[in-house]
Amino acid sequence: MVHQLRTMATKVLTPLTRSKHPHLKRGPFKKLQQEDINYFRTVLGSNQITTETDAHNIDLFNLYRGSSKLCLFPKSTEQVSSILAYCNDQHLAVVPQGGNTGVSGGAVPVFDEIVVNMSKFNRIRAFDDLSGIATVDGGVILEQLDQYLAPKGYTVPLDLGAKGSCQIAGNVSTNAGGLRLLRFGNLHGNVLGLEVVLPDGTILDDLSTLRKNNTGYDLKQLFIGAEGTLGMVTGVSLLTPIRPSSVNVTLVAMSSFEKVLQAYVSAKDHLGEILSAFEFWDMSSIKVVESKMEMEAFPVSQSDAPFYALVETQGSRDDHDKLKLEHYLESLMAEDVVLDGVLAQDDKQMRSLWQWREKIPEAIVACGPALTYDVSMDIRLFKQMVDSTMKHFEQKGLIGNTYQNIIGFGHIGDGNLHIMANMTGFDHNAQEVFDKYVFEWALANKGSISAEHGIGIHKVDYMERSKRGKNQLPLMNKIKNTLDPRGIMNPYKLLPE
Amino acid sequence: MVHQLRTMATKVLTPLTRSKHPHLKRGPFKKLQQEDINYFRTVLGSNQITTETDAHNIDLFNLYRGSSKLCLFPKSTEQVSSILAYCNDQHLAVVPQGGNTGVSGGAVPVFDEIVVNMSKFNRIRAFDDLSGIATVDGGVILEQLDQYLAPKGYTVPLDLGAKGSCQIAGNVSTNAGGLRLLRFGNLHGNVLGLEVVLPDGTILDDLSTLRKNNTGYDLKQLFIGAEGTLGMVTGVSLLTPIRPSSVNVTLVAMSSFEKVLQAYVSAKDHLGEILSAFEFWDMSSIKVVESKMEMEAFPVSQSDAPFYALVETQGSRDDHDKLKLEHYLESLMAEDVVLDGVLAQDDKQMRSLWQWREKIPEAIVACGPALTYDVSMDIRLFKQMVDSTMKHFEQKGLIGNTYQNIIGFGHIGDGNLHIMANMTGFDHNAQEVFDKYVFEWALANKGSISAEHGIGIHKVDYMERSKRGKNQLPLMNKIKNTLDPRGIMNPYKLLPE
Repeated sequence: MVHQLRTMATKVLTPLTRSKHPHLKRGPFKKLQQEDINYFRTVLGSNQITTETDAHNIDLFNLYRGSSKLCLFPKSTEQVSSILAYCNDQHLAVVPQGGNTGVSGGAVPVFDEIVVNMSKFNRIRAFDDLSGIATVDGGVILEQLDQYLAPKGYTVPLDLGAKGSCQIAGNVSTNAGGLRLLRFGNLHGNVLGLEVVLPDGTILDDLSTLRKNNTGYDLKQLFIGAEGTLGMVTGVSLLTPIRPSSVNVTLVAMSSFEKVLQAYVSAKDHLGEILSAFEFWDMSSIKVVESKMEMEAFPVSQSDAPFYALVETQGSRDDHDKLKLEHYLESLMAEDVVLDGVLAQDDKQMRSLWQWREKIPEAIVACGPALTYDVSMDIRLFKQMVDSTMKHFEQKGLIGNTYQNIIGFGHIGDGNLHIMANMTGFDHNAQEVFDKYVFEWALANKGSISAEHGIGIHKVDYMERSKRGKNQLPLMNKIKNTLDPRGIMNPYKLLPE
Repeated sequence: MVHQLRTMATKVLTPLTRSKHPHLKRGPFKKLQQEDINYFRTVLGSNQITTETDAHNIDLFNLYRGSSKLCLFPKSTEQVSSILAYCNDQHLAVVPQGGNTGVSGGAVPVFDEIVVNMSKFNRIRAFDDLSGIATVDGGVILEQLDQYLAPKGYTVPLDLGAKGSCQIAGNVSTNAGGLRLLRFGNLHGNVLGLEVVLPDGTILDDLSTLRKNNTGYDLKQLFIGAEGTLGMVTGVSLLTPIRPSSVNVTLVAMSSFEKVLQAYVSAKDHLGEILSAFEFWDMSSIKVVESKMEMEAFPVSQSDAPFYALVETQGSRDDHDKLKLEHYLESLMAEDVVLDGVLAQDDKQMRSLWQWREKIPEAIVACGPALTYDVSMDIRLFKQMVDSTMKHFEQKGLIGNTYQNIIGFGHIGDGNLHIMANMTGFDHNAQEVFDKYVFEWALANKGSISAEHGIGIHKVDYMERSKRGKNQLPLMNKIKNTLDPRGIMNPYKLLPE
């Protein structure tokens, strides 16, 4: 899916990052010289260095493009250490890159930063089948790890659309959330240890494989969600849960957003410990998917209901789980919470139901230049936010002209709303106007401008507003200066100038 | 239970911290003057300041005693800010104190640090019954919060013996683990936001109530487990899980430690998502409890089996949970994993079974001066560690003379072993000899010297060895110096000189 997205997007858009951030100036870093390339050739094998950097200069959605002249592919922690120590000494800027599936422009260069790509650093180092603790190189692909764990009866504690391309170190560096955070919690809880190369080349060994370890500051936490601005994550130790022997999925249609919330409360009551996902989307999302994707017939009779939810359970006994789910659906029907619903009878049906949720981003990207937002807030406000956005641009007469297909979907259980919209043609100003409306709405309602996508370059100009009065930015800057005094790690991202 | 422990312990031991750490010298802090007390009287009400400090100078187990002349009881974030800003300016050292139930001496003064006690700062600020997110003052007692949540259908995500006395800010500052970490995960995952007063009085507002919020470095994580050395936690926002409608407990006896591990693997298979605790203890633990506590008859026929485990489930449907547990027990019996077992039929029986685990620390303290250890490692090594310790001191001829009652128990699911032993009379050297053996054994076997109890003053001399070759201590020191350049926050603890 991810590669399809990439291909489609490339046809539509080719902006440069800098044109979106005209005030950005290249930092006072050294420009790459032949002597630098010569040095890297002494550290790396010939297949670990390239000056053909096109694929590494551009992000998945083709929204951000840099002009790096060099991409390096280390295969060991020591090689990463040699690279960063040299770059720090020479004052060469660096952008760490994993699967390059991020959506905030954090993993591509802004100017000519050297790309350090982790895709060749991808061994599974160890797995303990008693504790379920895996230790892996940073470049291991999420799905690769899941496939390794499957026959051992374990699974990865996070799941996201990009799992076939995204890498563990990238997941850690962006604090990836995904579809089952509701069940397994976030990476701050599931990452047990990290090995990190600090900007000066120091190898920080915090790669504990212990579930509990209270011996001083929990340093690894600093790097979870730091988007590569404090160092490069080279090794990860991860607590992996038992693979569920029973998975069930239901899709229900509802007449109002209030009913979605009722269905969520009821799911927590009826499904308790087996609830693994509660995803919602609106009718506009369905229309977009139907218009662009080859789908089977919509499985629920009310294909014009304003709201839908997909409820997934994962458990250890299928008979118990099915019974819980049946009682749940019966109570929803009895109390008129849902208009209609369908319960998948096999794996094929389950995948088919998930498609109606998972194809949404791909479908809207296929409609034209797409704006993607990822906010979190009190879930009671989700509908109000989508409605307000629609109404605001309608009143300005911009719907149909500048913007179209405003849709809302997301992770109810995590308080995480995705709003997407198309522009009729790519227009930086139109994007900025939409950004401003969405971000300010979220902030005015005590929400976050980034639930799980991170800041990258996309939202860096909103960090000041996001943190106003909180005293967070001065401390973030102090930490940045303490760990990366020369500022070589992923400059221009995350922290405003 | 906690207060009983305190009373009992006081009769036995009255050492001073300094006599245990003869090399420790008071830092170059200002000595408290009347002018300082006068200042604090302008900030605080008359019932918020005391010079009668005896109860605040000594820890729960009476192992550590300081000589503070002043204890302050702020009731607001602003008061904490005024206190710390003044102390930072005047270079007065501070020790934050919560319920004072810590076991590593982290919450009592070493010399004359001013005690800032949170017990009067204890309001529940907000609770959202849709998301289950609670926002509370740092001084709220854990059990008080649980009682507040109970009628709303939620519970706290951590549970420990000291819950009737320990405070949330203390739990956060020590990254408390407890009995149900296996189920709900650790505080790095469950704490959603913190309000912290930094050493210079700055109020850091990171009190997000959002489940997902990826906007820059996750600053709150720095303070989870920092043992009050980086600032004072004044507010906590916590994700609370649905209160289980069904709780079941079984106690089983086993003929070997290998069988304990088999029973654990089988519990993960059979009980999956409802498994909420897997606790083990050895026969010596039973003997100690029987000798000192008034207990009902031991519920399992094999009261002389070498090992026992208590398995608890929490779920949303009692019929399902009971069936899973019955199948689990049947399989254990059929495969000769257990010698005997008992399944609690009601709440009273459940509490009675838990007593055999929960009374262990209290019982051994009642036997005489008690040494307490809290290590984590590969669970396959638990028995070997207890056996090696016993054998080591037996060979030296010290069992019965210097040491007695060496017992092992703990949280199998978390890889967390508690070793306790009595000294026949309190003896600093004997304590140091035992410390050294236990800590070095754990480190030699890739374990941690502190799973959940923290470093405090007890283990600070082992931090260098614990972190050797890992490059962690220089970074910890940099962080300390960045946040607390004058070093006023809880000096002498956590970080070695």
